[in-house]
Amino acid sequence: MERKLLSVAISTVLLTVGGTAAAKEPIDPIRPVQNINLAQVELGKKLYFDPRLSKSGFISCNSCHNLSMGGTDNLKTSIGHNWQQGPINAPTVLNSSLNVAQFWDGRAADLKEQAGGPIANPGEMAFTHTLAIDVLQSIPQYVVEFKQVFGKDKINIDMVTQAIAEFEKTLVTPNSRFDQWLLGNKDALTANELAGYKLFKDSGCVACHYGEAMGGTSFQKMGLVEPYKSTSPAQGRAEVTGKDADRFMFKVPTLRNVEMTYPYFHDGEAQTLTEAVDIMGRLQLGKKFTSKENAQIVAFLKTLTGDQPQFLMPILPPSTDKTPAPKPFE
Amino acid sequence: MERKLLSVAISTVLLTVGGTAAAKEPIDPIRPVQNINLAQVELGKKLYFDPRLSKSGFISCNSCHNLSMGGTDNLKTSIGHNWQQGPINAPTVLNSSLNVAQFWDGRAADLKEQAGGPIANPGEMAFTHTLAIDVLQSIPQYVVEFKQVFGKDKINIDMVTQAIAEFEKTLVTPNSRFDQWLLGNKDALTANELAGYKLFKDSGCVACHYGEAMGGTSFQKMGLVEPYKSTSPAQGRAEVTGKDADRFMFKVPTLRNVEMTYPYFHDGEAQTLTEAVDIMGRLQLGKKFTSKENAQIVAFLKTLTGDQPQFLMPILPPSTDKTPAPKPFE
Repeated sequence: MERKLLSVAISTVLLTVGGTAAAKEPIDPIRPVQNINLAQVELGKKLYFDPRLSKSGFISCNSCHNLSMGGTDNLKTSIGHNWQQGPINAPTVLNSSLNVAQFWDGRAADLKEQAGGPIANPGEMAFTHTLAIDVLQSIPQYVVEFKQVFGKDKINIDMVTQAIAEFEKTLVTPNSRFDQWLLGNKDALTANELAGYKLFKDSGCVACHYGEAMGGTSFQKMGLVEPYKSTSPAQGRAEVTGKDADRFMFKVPTLRNVEMTYPYFHDGEAQTLTEAVDIMGRLQLGKKFTSKENAQIVAFLKTLTGDQPQFLMPILPPSTDKTPAPKPFE
Repeated sequence: MERKLLSVAISTVLLTVGGTAAAKEPIDPIRPVQNINLAQVELGKKLYFDPRLSKSGFISCNSCHNLSMGGTDNLKTSIGHNWQQGPINAPTVLNSSLNVAQFWDGRAADLKEQAGGPIANPGEMAFTHTLAIDVLQSIPQYVVEFKQVFGKDKINIDMVTQAIAEFEKTLVTPNSRFDQWLLGNKDALTANELAGYKLFKDSGCVACHYGEAMGGTSFQKMGLVEPYKSTSPAQGRAEVTGKDADRFMFKVPTLRNVEMTYPYFHDGEAQTLTEAVDIMGRLQLGKKFTSKENAQIVAFLKTLTGDQPQFLMPILPPSTDKTPAPKPFE
């Protein structure tokens, strides 16, 4: 009993310290996931890993947002159906529930809307929502699970994207060393990493990379002080709004787990954090970091890797004699 | 204590019954995995899921031997680098440690030898062993883990294939309903399924599909009684031995988890178990099963799905500034 009281007392002290520290900082610790529909999560996890949502039967959500690799594919731009080269770098799915909108240009309002996009994109999974539902509806184990979760016999695309989105909400990464520091463990960062954090704040990086996800909350022009030169066709937010003023306005990416989400920028042209920090400093802030400053900021950025989602690899229910066969080579 | 004694007594009875039953049958229950090097398994699991062993950075062992889908890709023939169409159906990795040799034509003596094949196959992962090692050696977390496991600073391809093979040895699937029946639980199968098993034995299927894996232990001619017509270029064992007598001799596939490992045969041309059973009966046994017989055999085959390997999705160590970038589009 005494031990329990002591433990509560220590927690209170830590929380107070943490609360004070966090209140002063422009960045909040990632909160563990709350208010989740676990049955939807389990179903959504299967769907996230199921390549039968693609025309080929080969590409799943996890192909380009690989949860073994920071929720990305670590490629400049992604590989789609028939090995098509995608137009843009796959953003991480980790902590994506904290984004103000989804995709680099924010064309999807939320995770649920996003999840339907790649399935029907001819350059990605190259399927249709109707055909994907036909596949799922032909698999009795899915039919039963959808009925259990949504209470209906007929599967529809809303249920599919809802379940995938609910799974994706669980993909937050709390407990990074930086978050431990924010929560009051002052030994969690080295002096060098702290110097990097000070530079990160004082130089203005934090003007866009703030909040829980350190990004994802606003659209900003890529090439603010100096123009950004790229062969990428991506126009950013302008493709959604049609406004010329929105050209090259991209959603600020999260910096959480940034050590794992290389290569960087919407075109994936920055291969290393050193390169990315240098370009961001010059183009967005008009500031040339010395190599020592750059290294300190990079050291800080590497403290942002949180606990990666840990889950059992899902086992997918097998197709049946009635399931339409995938068409990888048509 | 009494309860414990009772439990031991029941176990003994079950084991005795099981022993007797198993001794009479041409099929043995899958044994849980034993004598495993756990450190190699954990390293091998990462490598199995690591697409950086491919030229594109997109294809891993798990791409074609997907552990969410019975250790296969459920495609007629696999998709390789640059969306090349493979020449043959990807055999399941599940229980593959029980095979007399690896690949349909047995050209690899064991799992270790097999693991090196796809990495360097231009139609599959399209990399070289040297380049794969360069990638791994550039990642300090891998260097440390290889040193911990193998005691050496320099990674080599033998260590890579040894670790992957050790992981693959864990991919056995005990505890199917049929194995429960073999071990003495006579309620584990229905009368219909048992009728299917009797047909399976009496018709001669068991002549090739015997033992623990119900296959994998011999090479047999595809099209023994009637010739097998296929557009597949695969010649089978003849490609290894050079002997004309070995044309169309293929390794007998395991029937374990066969409900999950569709489509069937070396060319993946049989989409359903019904079709596969019908063709096998006619071409290998000279026997036309009635639709009732076929359905009974299929019902029996569906009792062969064992416990699928359960493990946490591995988190891969990130590349570094020194890691050669993947080349998906070159």
